[in-house]
Amino acid sequence: VNQSLIAQAQLKLDNKTKPPGSLGRLEEFARRMAAISGVMVPDTSKKVIFTFAGDHGIVEEGISLYPSEVTAQMVFNFLNGGAGVNVLARHSGVEVRVVDVGVDHDFGETPGLIHRKVARGTRNFAQGPAMTREEALAAMQVGIDLADQCKAEGVALVGTGEMGIGNTSPSSAIIAAISGLGVRELTHRGTGINNAALENKIRVIEQGLTLNSPDTQDPLDVLAKVGGLEIAAIAGLVLGCAANSIPVVIDGFISTAGALIASELHPNVRDYIFAAHRSVEIGHRVMLERIGAAPILDLDLRLGEGTGAALAMGLIEAGVKVMKEMATFDEAGVSH
Amino acid sequence: VNQSLIAQAQLKLDNKTKPPGSLGRLEEFARRMAAISGVMVPDTSKKVIFTFAGDHGIVEEGISLYPSEVTAQMVFNFLNGGAGVNVLARHSGVEVRVVDVGVDHDFGETPGLIHRKVARGTRNFAQGPAMTREEALAAMQVGIDLADQCKAEGVALVGTGEMGIGNTSPSSAIIAAISGLGVRELTHRGTGINNAALENKIRVIEQGLTLNSPDTQDPLDVLAKVGGLEIAAIAGLVLGCAANSIPVVIDGFISTAGALIASELHPNVRDYIFAAHRSVEIGHRVMLERIGAAPILDLDLRLGEGTGAALAMGLIEAGVKVMKEMATFDEAGVSH
Repeated sequence: VNQSLIAQAQLKLDNKTKPPGSLGRLEEFARRMAAISGVMVPDTSKKVIFTFAGDHGIVEEGISLYPSEVTAQMVFNFLNGGAGVNVLARHSGVEVRVVDVGVDHDFGETPGLIHRKVARGTRNFAQGPAMTREEALAAMQVGIDLADQCKAEGVALVGTGEMGIGNTSPSSAIIAAISGLGVRELTHRGTGINNAALENKIRVIEQGLTLNSPDTQDPLDVLAKVGGLEIAAIAGLVLGCAANSIPVVIDGFISTAGALIASELHPNVRDYIFAAHRSVEIGHRVMLERIGAAPILDLDLRLGEGTGAALAMGLIEAGVKVMKEMATFDEAGVSH
Repeated sequence: VNQSLIAQAQLKLDNKTKPPGSLGRLEEFARRMAAISGVMVPDTSKKVIFTFAGDHGIVEEGISLYPSEVTAQMVFNFLNGGAGVNVLARHSGVEVRVVDVGVDHDFGETPGLIHRKVARGTRNFAQGPAMTREEALAAMQVGIDLADQCKAEGVALVGTGEMGIGNTSPSSAIIAAISGLGVRELTHRGTGINNAALENKIRVIEQGLTLNSPDTQDPLDVLAKVGGLEIAAIAGLVLGCAANSIPVVIDGFISTAGALIASELHPNVRDYIFAAHRSVEIGHRVMLERIGAAPILDLDLRLGEGTGAALAMGLIEAGVKVMKEMATFDEAGVSH
């Protein structure tokens, strides 16, 4: 990112009618948006969240409250504008684009859906690798392609989101493999499972890690063996946004698993990442520390889809508006 | 507030297409907005922040970086739409109304300003009482009147804001008097004073408390002796909003001092309060604990004016939209 623009941006902010630094993280958002985009006051009118949907073979181990069918059902809910991410994105002036990267359902010609299915879900990683390396790379390419398209369209800010019944399990597995911490310290209740189901979930994830023994020095191997298609697409989106100088807002636990893969592959992508919020999922904190991102919101969210990203994008845009719209001391005739 | 509506609201939220409780505090906002307004899905189109301006005699003790003239200068900045609160309120779809309740400046006919001046600033509370009890009551009445007017206009959500050079000192004095904690533990750098100035500020506040010895069992006595006209108006606004069943979002340290006076007078007002954010000012946490309010945002803000309230009002409205716009499981054909 353009470091000289960070200093220039702060100079400009310090001429605004307020004590220096008094708008706290809003000023950070304004500085970073300038440095990432290369423009002091980027035009933030185009903002897009990509909600990637994929299914998970691991669901057959009974690790989720909901059946896999819900993934496809929720895709239709997204397309109809009735899901949480739709409501919150509309509120923040953000467009939601829904991508089938791996749902176990034949959507046919379904209009409005971005059709990029790599496979009808992952395989059960408690019994073998979730994906081949080729499948993982193909799913990453989906995210990269969409980031390239955003650059061509002039999108100022991208958000990540996901839908995939069972996808907190691969996310816990990814951070366990990469951090070396125990699965138990990194695994929570997902959509709300009880104690017995949580014990089973921990056991299943541990079994998958032992069986597949992913190469912890090879993020792609981790992604392929215990990850997910939507997680791979998010990793690709983050890489693609960084390559195109587009700031990217990562949502919660699952999105951060994707961003973590991207940042392990190319540490420089961290400069392009905003962490939307602190998830209720206990493994999330460890991921964010490893990426070096401070969450913007802490609202006890655990829905995913891009809901936290939608809210945080509104706050980041507010920071840019501070830079753009606030009067300077001279303009306002205020003593300083 | 209507407790039965809280339970009904949660039932309605639990039918939305999401795991129960997964939208965390957004669901809390939706429940509380229903319970306070008495309407399951209140119309949130009208939202208003009142920015009360007043000057402080204590400034002659050298407790602020900025001269008192800045208070009036900033009033013109608010009226011209160039201040931080204007930018952030526009972003959140909130109207800003600026009230002169005690600025040491003759505004004449200045259009757009709400003229309710009680006095040309407080007196120096290091030398004697800041206000008479009558002045404090008159300034409170300004806030009460404006809340009544909001009820008549159908305003769904009110925010508090303030401008008054020197007003972190009376705020620290108020929480010190009410909590019994030491001034040093409750006093911070305001707009950014250095160590020597901070020591002076602590000494001046301690001197004012010793000299005036406010009756700590009488919130009005505390307000009059060491408070401020804009702080009194905020206390009145909070009381008036509660009396009119209007939810009120309190901004940072100074606004919370006003809300604290209101909640000490009538503990029930706490049910109507949303705390916008956690201020950098160290006394703020103690105030919020005493009121029993959990801050919505934590963005290192310390500008005041209503800037934090503007951002939080957007998030509270997002909670209401979750209730209003999200599809139910049945509507969306999603299994549960």
